[in-house]
Amino acid sequence: MKKLINNPKDIVNELIDGYAAAHSDIVKRVEGYTITARKDIPVKDRVAIVTGGGSGHEPLFEEYVGKGMADAAAHGQIFASPSSAIILEAIKAVDGGKGVLLVYCNYAGDVLNFDMAQEMAIDEGHRVDQVRINDDVSSGPKDRREGRRGTTAAPIILKIAGAAAEAGLDFDSLKKIIQKAVDNSRSLGVSLSACTLPETGLATFSLEDGKMEFGMGLHGEAGIKKVDLLSADDTTITILDLIIQDLPFNSGDEVVALINSYGSTTKMEMYLIAGKLHSYLRGKQIKILSTEIGEFCTSQEMAGISITLFKLDAELKKYYEMPCFAPGFRK
Amino acid sequence: MKKLINNPKDIVNELIDGYAAAHSDIVKRVEGYTITARKDIPVKDRVAIVTGGGSGHEPLFEEYVGKGMADAAAHGQIFASPSSAIILEAIKAVDGGKGVLLVYCNYAGDVLNFDMAQEMAIDEGHRVDQVRINDDVSSGPKDRREGRRGTTAAPIILKIAGAAAEAGLDFDSLKKIIQKAVDNSRSLGVSLSACTLPETGLATFSLEDGKMEFGMGLHGEAGIKKVDLLSADDTTITILDLIIQDLPFNSGDEVVALINSYGSTTKMEMYLIAGKLHSYLRGKQIKILSTEIGEFCTSQEMAGISITLFKLDAELKKYYEMPCFAPGFRK
Repeated sequence: MKKLINNPKDIVNELIDGYAAAHSDIVKRVEGYTITARKDIPVKDRVAIVTGGGSGHEPLFEEYVGKGMADAAAHGQIFASPSSAIILEAIKAVDGGKGVLLVYCNYAGDVLNFDMAQEMAIDEGHRVDQVRINDDVSSGPKDRREGRRGTTAAPIILKIAGAAAEAGLDFDSLKKIIQKAVDNSRSLGVSLSACTLPETGLATFSLEDGKMEFGMGLHGEAGIKKVDLLSADDTTITILDLIIQDLPFNSGDEVVALINSYGSTTKMEMYLIAGKLHSYLRGKQIKILSTEIGEFCTSQEMAGISITLFKLDAELKKYYEMPCFAPGFRK
Repeated sequence: MKKLINNPKDIVNELIDGYAAAHSDIVKRVEGYTITARKDIPVKDRVAIVTGGGSGHEPLFEEYVGKGMADAAAHGQIFASPSSAIILEAIKAVDGGKGVLLVYCNYAGDVLNFDMAQEMAIDEGHRVDQVRINDDVSSGPKDRREGRRGTTAAPIILKIAGAAAEAGLDFDSLKKIIQKAVDNSRSLGVSLSACTLPETGLATFSLEDGKMEFGMGLHGEAGIKKVDLLSADDTTITILDLIIQDLPFNSGDEVVALINSYGSTTKMEMYLIAGKLHSYLRGKQIKILSTEIGEFCTSQEMAGISITLFKLDAELKKYYEMPCFAPGFRK
């Protein structure tokens, strides 16, 4: 796959600069670091939210920085965690005295570096704690959910976190509601093709003609089953069957449904998925508050989609419906 | 390229149903037709805007139906114009007595069918006129601009049309400002790969390894030059050099800049393009009011990007900045 890049070693640096230039009404770059932040940091009078992770998944994470979303995002190189030094700098940049919550996707490298940054920041006198996103039902058994990977629930979790922070919740209450948002999220994806690493031009893995793989990770991690290519309808049913039973989502529940393209899957295909998702959930008497469709968490130009269901209660619904204004998510 | 579809003959029908289900807060389907429309049609007390064209370019056109954008879109099959009967039905569905302006991209099939629908609607007593979008500088010489194709300026033109209609402009004034918006738009794209037709699974054309083609059309129409793959920076310069001289855009001008992915080109790449675009225009003393980045007009999963520049004056700026709320464009 050909890509429009310049120096392969400088992609993330240029990406952050281009992003900050394009959205200078909302965000800025923290000078000298691969950190994007709201223009008005440090955060006064409320707890701040820091997210981050590897690059190459755009619009994740940088487009979820803005009013009512995250205050800053720390970016690693392509498919690699940001260093603890970068995360620490993001914490210091946003903290106006009320503390910082780290909200990020559960991957070994990220856990290591966010943990270390948290310790260093605490040593420097900041109040810091964290919540890990682990919505991917394919990446671990239900009784060891803390080991599961975080994926496309990220924009929803950051939406809740940002809205609740904006509403002025204290540190402990805020952590609690972000954890509840994570606990109420389930996702599963299916991949139809590999993606190309921009630095090398090489594919991350290979997938035979006519096959698709459920549960493949955003970096080519092995999935749970490889099958012959299914129709849009059968793909939707397969995913929803697995998600629904995992929480479980029950008759009478109200949800946000998010349909994510991993990269080259088209909106055309996603609307076929959306049609089936609506009839499936109607059949289960599960009400959809909002359907979000687009690219939210990509793996370069990988073909495939993921579906996230997010179960609402009165509190989560209130925060989900509050306005937000980030480049990648607006309400 | 594998696709998530069901019956290949029923794609557009299912696409419209899925779209209407996903965005039922804003739009509905006009029963029995491949037409999407605002929920509150027919339009009272102002002129209505109808757009449309071939499917397969999502989010174009259906996602530009909403408050402050188009009132309805008539959809053809994949890469094929809607029939005059469908367009006529869209006109009848929206017209509340103040007339209808057809705003669509300039392709032979669309011109034929929109012209015919316009005549039929006039015969039935509707007031109807039209403006054709022709922003693609590669598809014809400057002195025969009326022959050029319409491409990624479409969301901007529909934004202006919808805002000016909402503001209550009379029929003739509205037509005039939409025509001015078209006259102030210039686009050019570059393709790095072909796309696959979903009904057949076949590629629309072939492009050799290591090559890119400037000015290729959204349906594989031949471009203006094929070159060895350029860097993101050189690609941006090549496109902007051609766009800038065409209007021309001059020092002191203020513009909206739109960077569109044709399908599988990533946001990562688009932010590199955005960085160079900002430094290039700054060098020319051209001010950017807003940078829009994403998928606005795709050609299935084709790799490549296009850039649109839209020159503002006080009137166009006022309408551009008015709020709008459509699934694919929100201000």
